[in-house]
Amino acid sequence: MTLNLETEFTFDVEQATDVLLQFEAAVLESQAIESSQTLISPALALTRVTAEAGIGERIWLPASGMVSVRYSASVKITRSQPALADLDAIAPHDLPAEAVAYLLDSRYCPAEQFQAFVDDEFGTLSGGARIDAIRAWIASNFTYASGSSGPETGAVDSFVARRGVCRDYAHVLISLARASAIPARYVSCYAPGVDPPDFHAVVEVFLAEPSGAGVGAWHLVDATGMADPCETAIIGVGRDAADVSFLTSFGPSNFGSLLVRVTKE
Amino acid sequence: MTLNLETEFTFDVEQATDVLLQFEAAVLESQAIESSQTLISPALALTRVTAEAGIGERIWLPASGMVSVRYSASVKITRSQPALADLDAIAPHDLPAEAVAYLLDSRYCPAEQFQAFVDDEFGTLSGGARIDAIRAWIASNFTYASGSSGPETGAVDSFVARRGVCRDYAHVLISLARASAIPARYVSCYAPGVDPPDFHAVVEVFLAEPSGAGVGAWHLVDATGMADPCETAIIGVGRDAADVSFLTSFGPSNFGSLLVRVTKE
Amino acid sequence: MTLNLETEFTFDVEQATDVLLQFEAAVLESQAIESSQTLISPALALTRVTAEAGIGERIWLPASGMVSVRYSASVKITRSQPALADLDAIAPHDLPAEAVAYLLDSRYCPAEQFQAFVDDEFGTLSGGARIDAIRAWIASNFTYASGSSGPETGAVDSFVARRGVCRDYAHVLISLARASAIPARYVSCYAPGVDPPDFHAVVEVFLAEPSGAGVGAWHLVDATGMADPCETAIIGVGRDAADVSFLTSFGPSNFGSLLVRVTKE
Amino acid sequence: MTLNLETEFTFDVEQATDVLLQFEAAVLESQAIESSQTLISPALALTRVTAEAGIGERIWLPASGMVSVRYSASVKITRSQPALADLDAIAPHDLPAEAVAYLLDSRYCPAEQFQAFVDDEFGTLSGGARIDAIRAWIASNFTYASGSSGPETGAVDSFVARRGVCRDYAHVLISLARASAIPARYVSCYAPGVDPPDFHAVVEVFLAEPSGAGVGAWHLVDATGMADPCETAIIGVGRDAADVSFLTSFGPSNFGSLLVRVTKE
Repeated sequence: MTLNLETEFTFDVEQATDVLLQFEAAVLESQAIESSQTLISPALALTRVTAEAGIGERIWLPASGMVSVRYSASVKITRSQPALADLDAIAPHDLPAEAVAYLLDSRYCPAEQFQAFVDDEFGTLSGGARIDAIRAWIASNFTYASGSSGPETGAVDSFVARRGVCRDYAHVLISLARASAIPARYVSCYAPGVDPPDFHAVVEVFLAEPSGAGVGAWHLVDATGMADPCETAIIGVGRDAADVSFLTSFGPSNFGSLLVRVTKE
Repeated sequence: MTLNLETEFTFDVEQATDVLLQFEAAVLESQAIESSQTLISPALALTRVTAEAGIGERIWLPASGMVSVRYSASVKITRSQPALADLDAIAPHDLPAEAVAYLLDSRYCPAEQFQAFVDDEFGTLSGGARIDAIRAWIASNFTYASGSSGPETGAVDSFVARRGVCRDYAHVLISLARASAIPARYVSCYAPGVDPPDFHAVVEVFLAEPSGAGVGAWHLVDATGMADPCETAIIGVGRDAADVSFLTSFGPSNFGSLLVRVTKE
Repeated sequence: MTLNLETEFTFDVEQATDVLLQFEAAVLESQAIESSQTLISPALALTRVTAEAGIGERIWLPASGMVSVRYSASVKITRSQPALADLDAIAPHDLPAEAVAYLLDSRYCPAEQFQAFVDDEFGTLSGGARIDAIRAWIASNFTYASGSSGPETGAVDSFVARRGVCRDYAHVLISLARASAIPARYVSCYAPGVDPPDFHAVVEVFLAEPSGAGVGAWHLVDATGMADPCETAIIGVGRDAADVSFLTSFGPSNFGSLLVRVTKE
Repeated sequence: MTLNLETEFTFDVEQATDVLLQFEAAVLESQAIESSQTLISPALALTRVTAEAGIGERIWLPASGMVSVRYSASVKITRSQPALADLDAIAPHDLPAEAVAYLLDSRYCPAEQFQAFVDDEFGTLSGGARIDAIRAWIASNFTYASGSSGPETGAVDSFVARRGVCRDYAHVLISLARASAIPARYVSCYAPGVDPPDFHAVVEVFLAEPSGAGVGAWHLVDATGMADPCETAIIGVGRDAADVSFLTSFGPSNFGSLLVRVTKE
């Protein structure tokens, strides 16, 4: 299936500042960029570098004053999604080296603190079945509420408040997965059906492949239930939201407006 | 010069648990392992994986009950250390892709919050001169106090409390560097002169090379002033202490005793 | 001098919920309520209880659905304000019993953590001279920035961020005063000149009376410098903002709009 | 019944500092001090002030160098304890003025964040039945673990970690009670059966009296289940542990040793 993406946002930096952007769908085996256009005005000298885990690109922008960004793309998604509950865990000592960092505490996911909780609540389950149970537990205990959280909100706050937006749902799921010794990372993405329309955030967990063959793979899970993995255009991944913010400024900046539109063809 | 390292520690896990260890000096161009011995008892099936940024190794241990670890090594350090103040900054958009993550917020280093502070306090300085000024500011405002912090203590707590141990000094320096758009990472290491003797923690910042040539390099800084970069045996690096703890347990564990001894030959 | 106050705000509670309000100017020796009118619609059975430290009143409202509150008053202020720097400290062991609680940590003012900072920065000063220096330090290091903080922001966050609104300025001043063993409390109030117009927050510190006579008294200080103590109509006091919020809801509620107008006669 | 109390502790202040102590059993209708002895050495000029809510006394000590405190007392407890589940809630608007502060957020009990959780988990229960259910929920979900928390640990941390000591159990119970619009306060006390022996912490909640008569009363609840309210010698009460620490220092201090012994006669 094909997703048509459109986004448009503006921001304003008080003085010349390097700004880091990440908003374009990544080139991946499971998603092909059929066409895309990125317009930044005023015209600025962009620098592109590969983003976390080699997925997608970060754009550096030497910004000054008001900046407006427009992006549109058509992305063909060919991802298939095995049933989570069928996926076995991979013993930590069998994980590939690059998955280990995704077991550790990060800015918004201080996972270690949740070890007693996951052991009590999900102790009888492992692998994909445990992730599935965590997802179901979040779904039945949390309320999706726009505006209920902010940029400083982390998994601990959300776990207590039992409300949040996609970013918060993702942080809680990541924390509970890592506390279960299952690598988990944050995925910023585009998906249809996100209400209100916005960038979306889901999670990837590292589990065995359905066949049982190989060293395992990353599998998408949406803690909010709003997006189907097969209809998700991945922008980038990271330890948590701090790694894949669509805009990170290294000086004072004011955010203007944001428009996101995602449609299925 | 050559450092002789010795460490010995014990811990106890209540039930069979995967434990992640990182305590051996890394093989690096600037430090050669002349001899080393690692003894873990009881004899357990270790798995080794490359650690963060390809520096050093992480060891997985399927632990159960009481475990004791002994390590000794002789490490020849050939690192030379340019004067920090002579090193230029590298513009963020000229950073190599792999340095960018070290500009972002991490578990114990929520750097973005410090942007206004560094701009006010060190706004006239850049690059190595700024790092030098930050180091001097920490030295004159902080008191080294064993036991004044714990595993949950982050840079914000330490910045307020103005006291801490090497880990806390490193987290504050890293946060102020990143808030200044200078990549900074946490380095766990062995160094003589650490009092009381313990694992040590210093920082690496990414700055231009003294010659001005090339894409920049990581340079060691010890915020506590206790260790000379030329007499430091690096174990590993990471975003902050969460990435290079010498012991991370994925289940309940009790730490026993720790002995560290570092001597110059 | 006389202040004319007007406020109007609306909120909406999803289900029948007890809501606690505190928005009326208090009856005090230093301020006389010459006239006032409080209108709450729909008409609800209000209950009034004396607020913290016997200053002002709290109103309980059994709310349901949309509620609108209008209040206007004319308040004659006769407060005189001695020069802070002339006021001596009172030794902690000479404090009246009811002042001691204002030395201790509260929700947004975890003061104990700041002891090393105040000792380093203001260690040579005591009493009113120290408070004056703290106020000056905040004035020169902080930027008043609407929208830069939220309901969860505490003194530690603000101390790091170096920006905030009146509530944040007050929390930092309170924390630094308590860390100096000087009782300090949060004062919600009306004052002209607050920009943008809103409820205002200042601080009271407990110091000797100018004459040196008696057991000491509470003296107003505005960390933001926006309000003159002689032109401030006090609503209530508390340990920090948690005690004197103008609206505390014990169930889900949505805040509507707020209008505050304060003029001098 | 009669409790024999003994405590002995030492601490050391680096420079002359006012230290606040609260460790003596309070004189209350429900507990009579039959004999007591307080010895502080070196001999220092103590000042006593009434503590929070008029319960017990705080002692100011102008300390310098090493201080040792010894206290012994014999306390006759005549408290009777109604079954919690039989006690009705008091509507917030019927609470006496002095109970209202115990509904609000405090240093270690940011209760408002827990409103959604208590509504989901205990929404069908009210008054003493809800407190009983909260106590049972804590008992079945938390593990008592000496050393698992520290002086900075608050109710949010404990709620996540699911482990702690009496202080943490009390903070969680208080937070969940306040989020339920039931006033709750922290009680420091002596009780037999505390293991390891130490000062103990329990909670008082404000509920209707069993007869249904009167304006309500404070009722003791021990979230840890270790102490029987009828065998508890109350030292003092407060919003949370910050208000009734047995030792609060306004300058650098080092804690020495602590011995507590409580026996039933």
